[in-house]
Amino acid sequence: MRRIKLTIEFDGTHFAGLQTQAQGERTVQGELEAALAQIPGALPKIVACGRTDTGVHALAMPVHYDTQDPIPAAKIPFALNGLLPPDLRALSAEEVDPGFHARKSCFWREYRYRILQRTFPPALERNRVWWIPQALNLVPMRHALEDLVGLHDFGAFAIKEERSTLREVYRAHLEVRPTDSGREIWMEFIGSGFVRGQVRSMVGTLVEVGLGKRDSSSIAALLHSGNRSQAGPTAPPQGLYFVRAGYEPYGKH
Amino acid sequence: MRRIKLTIEFDGTHFAGLQTQAQGERTVQGELEAALAQIPGALPKIVACGRTDTGVHALAMPVHYDTQDPIPAAKIPFALNGLLPPDLRALSAEEVDPGFHARKSCFWREYRYRILQRTFPPALERNRVWWIPQALNLVPMRHALEDLVGLHDFGAFAIKEERSTLREVYRAHLEVRPTDSGREIWMEFIGSGFVRGQVRSMVGTLVEVGLGKRDSSSIAALLHSGNRSQAGPTAPPQGLYFVRAGYEPYGKH
Repeated sequence: MRRIKLTIEFDGTHFAGLQTQAQGERTVQGELEAALAQIPGALPKIVACGRTDTGVHALAMPVHYDTQDPIPAAKIPFALNGLLPPDLRALSAEEVDPGFHARKSCFWREYRYRILQRTFPPALERNRVWWIPQALNLVPMRHALEDLVGLHDFGAFAIKEERSTLREVYRAHLEVRPTDSGREIWMEFIGSGFVRGQVRSMVGTLVEVGLGKRDSSSIAALLHSGNRSQAGPTAPPQGLYFVRAGYEPYGKH
Repeated sequence: MRRIKLTIEFDGTHFAGLQTQAQGERTVQGELEAALAQIPGALPKIVACGRTDTGVHALAMPVHYDTQDPIPAAKIPFALNGLLPPDLRALSAEEVDPGFHARKSCFWREYRYRILQRTFPPALERNRVWWIPQALNLVPMRHALEDLVGLHDFGAFAIKEERSTLREVYRAHLEVRPTDSGREIWMEFIGSGFVRGQVRSMVGTLVEVGLGKRDSSSIAALLHSGNRSQAGPTAPPQGLYFVRAGYEPYGKH
């Protein structure tokens, strides 16, 4: 038996998230395990680096599974892509140490959130961005972003209670990208990990800062309070992308 | 009665093209006219600047229609977007001279074609690009592009016979854009007009040049021959975008 680290890309629009939950819902895990079940020797059971909710996308999500199949690792994506649906793709595969664990061995994760600013809702990017027609003031948003960096209790941004909500954000960055019809604001977050709903709650809160509904200096107090009801709304899922993950301490890649 | 110039964006994936053809097919024209039919006073009959085939997208396609409704032009996109499906959006509207014609008054059209180069097919951009895993040599492609610029008989690139296939290409340009997982090649064409299938046939031919299957110097002879069977294959529709159109001579915008 050998362990394979597989990196996948998916369009989250028509998935009820990554992880298999209730019966009958279409999930990334369900589709990937159905494909693995067609490869003799592969155990149709995957472990993913992160969870993603319904509608959230992934550019390069690592997962692992065990197999006795004789396929050379570099050929696995070709085999899998012939079995996977078009909104889920294998990008690379490598054989790893049997102790490797896609979630537990991971040192850092990178997420991106895309906001589209223009007058009218987008037809082409409707499942890819959060459309916000109101002007956003980026200066206080950048200040607020800085206060999210570091080791904090992110309980105020958690969707539901978890054993520990202590996480470290290594980098939080905002950039503006011109588009054909307006501009996009990309927020990028790199951290040791993120509690459930953290990125979308942080983005919802930052948008309130950008709209002038919340002071940029309120983030520190919000983190300190640990009170979810004081954070902003959860940003919609279609603007969120799991970008990639690292298996060495952050900064060493 | 007043004439309205309306600019629309659409995701061509789930449309059988722009123009209404046979009964029962979902078209951009059909959806837009159904929305206009709900605005009292508006004639539910549009004329578009260009035709686009099944799967082809538009970022800013001008159309015109006549109406007796009293809605200020600037408010029309808000009204229409409440009536249109999410893959079709109104971006702007203005009242124009009754002699204005979205197709006949147009001086130039701009198209873009996106090719994605990476090893594996894309999940997220699967309906937005032509995925080509083989390396493309851009130097001869750029030379071939230059030979397409100017006043030519584009019969060799026409899908079917037309009264005249004489058109002028004002600009043909190729640029490389890095992406998260590879690179995209964007080809942009601005011309007086394009015969049916011209852009996709030109792209298919240019890709043969990039793959080394065709000499870059063969374009002039191909144009001269007017023989469709000597051109390359028609590039797939999902990589093609109608970008915008101009109602003043090219270069005066």
